[in-house]
Amino acid sequence: MNSANARALFATARLARLASASADGRPHLVPVCFALEHDTLYSAVDHKPKRSATRLRRLDNIAANPSVTVVADHYEEDWSALWWARADGSAKIVAAGEPEHARAVTLLAERYEQYRARAPGGPAIVVAVERWSGWRASEDSDMRL
Amino acid sequence: MNSANARALFATARLARLASASADGRPHLVPVCFALEHDTLYSAVDHKPKRSATRLRRLDNIAANPSVTVVADHYEEDWSALWWARADGSAKIVAAGEPEHARAVTLLAERYEQYRARAPGGPAIVVAVERWSGWRASEDSDMRL
Repeated sequence: MNSANARALFATARLARLASASADGRPHLVPVCFALEHDTLYSAVDHKPKRSATRLRRLDNIAANPSVTVVADHYEEDWSALWWARADGSAKIVAAGEPEHARAVTLLAERYEQYRARAPGGPAIVVAVERWSGWRASEDSDMRL
Repeated sequence: MNSANARALFATARLARLASASADGRPHLVPVCFALEHDTLYSAVDHKPKRSATRLRRLDNIAANPSVTVVADHYEEDWSALWWARADGSAKIVAAGEPEHARAVTLLAERYEQYRARAPGGPAIVVAVERWSGWRASEDSDMRL
C-alpha cells in the first residue's frame, strides 16, 4: 500500500494506539484519540493528577526518546476486510498555553464532540509523521494479519 | 483496575496490538490475533517470503530485546463505554516444529475459525505476561482516554 492510501485509511479511524519506548528500549503502548493535519498527528493527555505515575509514562518516554509509532486498524470476522495503517515519526510534548497546544485542542474538538464538551487539560503530543505504511487484506493474495 | 479484571477484559478482544522495540529503542507496532492461556499470550506470523523485510521487524526486535507490550481496547462514541487492557511481558520466538509452536497453533485455531481453515505457517510469538493493567471509563470519575 502506498503512503497516501495508508494515511487515508488511518484518517478514518476514531482510535489509534501510540507506542513509545523508554531510553533503554522498554516499549509502552496506550490508546489515543487523534486528529491529523497533513503529516502531523495530534493527541492530548487529560489532566489527572492522581494517576500521574501511570498516565505520564508516554510523556517520560517521549522526552527521553522521541521515536514513536502509531497504529490504526480494522477488524472483522471476515478477514478479507482487515486493514491496518501505521504512522512512524518523531514526537514532542507541547504544554497547555503554547500555540501548538491550542491547535491540537481545536483539531481534536473538530473531530470529537466529546472534546467539545470538555477540552483536554493536559499537554498535547504532537507527532511529525515521517513514514506512512499499511496493509489491506483485499489487496493481498495471502490475507492474514 | 486490578490485574484479574484487566486480563479478563483483554481476553474478550479479537484483536490486539503488539509493540516491540529495537535494541536502540525504536518502537514497532503491529496488530495481532492472539490466544491466552493463563499468563501466556500466543500469536503467530504467516509465512510470506516476499514480505520478509517488513513482516519480520517484530521478530528482529524480539530477538534483540524481548521486552514487549500488547494492548486490547474498546471504542464507542459513548466514551463511558471505553476500556483498554494491557499485557507487559517478555517475548520469545518459537519456530514451527517446536512443541510450543504446536500449542500456539492449537490455541489460535480454537479461537479463530480462520486459523482452522489454514494454520499459520510462520513462527509463533510467545509472551510471558509479567503484568496486566487496564482502565475502564465506567470505573473512572474522569472518563477519558
